[in-house]
Amino acid sequence: MKKIINMPGDVVRECAEGFAAAYGGQYELLKEAAGIRVRDVKDKTALVIGGGSGHEPMFEFFLGENLGDAAACGNIFTSPDPGTIYQTAMSVERGKGVLFVYGNYTGDSMNFDMAAELMADAGVESRTVRVRDDIASAPRDRLYDRRGIAGDFFVIRISGAATGAGLSLEEAYRVTEKANENTYTIGVGLSGATIPGEREPIFTLPEDEMEFGLGIHGEPGVKRVKLMPADDLVDELYRQLLEDSALKAGDEVCSYINGLGSTTLMELCIMNRRLKQLLDRDGIRIHDMEVNSLVTTQEMAGASITLMRVDDELKRYYDQPCSCPYYTKKRLQADAGQRSMPS
Amino acid sequence: MKKIINMPGDVVRECAEGFAAAYGGQYELLKEAAGIRVRDVKDKTALVIGGGSGHEPMFEFFLGENLGDAAACGNIFTSPDPGTIYQTAMSVERGKGVLFVYGNYTGDSMNFDMAAELMADAGVESRTVRVRDDIASAPRDRLYDRRGIAGDFFVIRISGAATGAGLSLEEAYRVTEKANENTYTIGVGLSGATIPGEREPIFTLPEDEMEFGLGIHGEPGVKRVKLMPADDLVDELYRQLLEDSALKAGDEVCSYINGLGSTTLMELCIMNRRLKQLLDRDGIRIHDMEVNSLVTTQEMAGASITLMRVDDELKRYYDQPCSCPYYTKKRLQADAGQRSMPS
Repeated sequence: MKKIINMPGDVVRECAEGFAAAYGGQYELLKEAAGIRVRDVKDKTALVIGGGSGHEPMFEFFLGENLGDAAACGNIFTSPDPGTIYQTAMSVERGKGVLFVYGNYTGDSMNFDMAAELMADAGVESRTVRVRDDIASAPRDRLYDRRGIAGDFFVIRISGAATGAGLSLEEAYRVTEKANENTYTIGVGLSGATIPGEREPIFTLPEDEMEFGLGIHGEPGVKRVKLMPADDLVDELYRQLLEDSALKAGDEVCSYINGLGSTTLMELCIMNRRLKQLLDRDGIRIHDMEVNSLVTTQEMAGASITLMRVDDELKRYYDQPCSCPYYTKKRLQADAGQRSMPS
Repeated sequence: MKKIINMPGDVVRECAEGFAAAYGGQYELLKEAAGIRVRDVKDKTALVIGGGSGHEPMFEFFLGENLGDAAACGNIFTSPDPGTIYQTAMSVERGKGVLFVYGNYTGDSMNFDMAAELMADAGVESRTVRVRDDIASAPRDRLYDRRGIAGDFFVIRISGAATGAGLSLEEAYRVTEKANENTYTIGVGLSGATIPGEREPIFTLPEDEMEFGLGIHGEPGVKRVKLMPADDLVDELYRQLLEDSALKAGDEVCSYINGLGSTTLMELCIMNRRLKQLLDRDGIRIHDMEVNSLVTTQEMAGASITLMRVDDELKRYYDQPCSCPYYTKKRLQADAGQRSMPS
């Protein structure tokens, strides 16, 4: 895969610099661009997100009103180091503690925990929520082994609104963990992803196959199957989500179709059409649906479906406006009843 | 290229239905989903955009506050038919006429003109702006043969704000044509694009080559060259833009780096970093920079740079907030001085 880059070792810094060139009125780069924070730091519980780069706009561009306050960025698919995390977090900490939200990966957990220890030594409280939405990555009885993938979007949305509303560290942690507990994702990969500077993709798939449960760093999935029509694919992904989540008639969800890179918005919308039909069929109420490519894996082709079960409390935070250059929600635009299919 | 679709003949309708499933509170589908309009139609000059599908989110999702009021959508890379355009336009016309804005392609021009004639017969006035920003598609002395590519973004932004501000059809036409005259784009393609249902891409490029001036439907470009580092690529694209536009020190621009599909936001930001350096070097003032993938060509890899020369009048319209699910501008976030590179 051809990429438009300079030296492979510079991609993360140069990416952040190019982002700051465009949006630097709102954002400031930290520590040789390994961290980014909002300029207008509010007096509230700080929300610090992060992880490996290569999933843009997640994590480092997902900062702003009712989103993250700062992000610590590692190299491509690699955790940021503890020093970067510490400095990034301290740059937005205002005496009310820091809530860390990131995907559940060994390297991230180790380094964010070390940063949290450094902060504790400096007298700063923190709590951590590790997103664990990928139902394909471990069975339910090993819930805490599950990886974080596109569900980052919902969990960070809720934590951004919770900290933005002025909740204490403990309360923001509780609400965010509630979102985490109720968020379920399953993905499918159709083609490989290439790390900048590498000549070959991390993995390849035969021309007529797709793989369920592929991770967003090319981690192997659970099953390779033949290509199938979009509706059949959504039916199968949805079946697995319902089985794992035990969602049932009368429950209410927010849904998110996430593209991994080169899968077009057209394909994602075609998937969403079917998802709406299935949720309606099963009497699962839809609070909101989003279709976008916010958690990517370089140029990988594929997509995932995320469902978050919501109650009144989660809806209250979900409905807060939020904004960054690649995702804005002004207000919830309609009730589910208005979201009718064309006649 | 594998795609997540059902029957190839249904992709446009199913895409629109999936979009409406998510965002139908704001949008309504028309005529078997070949048209989309905002629900909340304002009493103003109507702005109707459109063209072939396959460039999502442009055109059909680029509707909303200070953006288009309705879009007529053809099949993939194919103009909508005159009947669809007519019905779509009439659905948002409120007695103040219709401004059509679309890319300058033979099929679109013919069909939109036929729709305009049908409207004239029905007593509805219209004016047309054909976006012609692609400097690679024809020399300056055949300006009106130039194609519309990513510059659609700026021209529609300005026309949306102009009609949104209550300008008459004639005045909105004048301001939009001024934006069009001052918008220049040059692109580079790195890989092919596949039409849904086809097995092979429209064209292919050797593994170590890129092509300048590729069209957004796979139209041939002007020159194939060896892959080069991002900064060298931006230098060359920028040189061509400056030569064609005669932009000079003291002029002011808005810039837009557009990704064509599978080129990542990271790469686009890396390009933007260099563009900022070049504009600063040459004393060209930056009113605003955007980096996004709003005018795509399926899964094609590549990108383009657009510069729009702005004066006080164009800035006034550019600075209006606008919003659709894939692009929101709340207000211009900062002056150029704050957009500093990290130290």
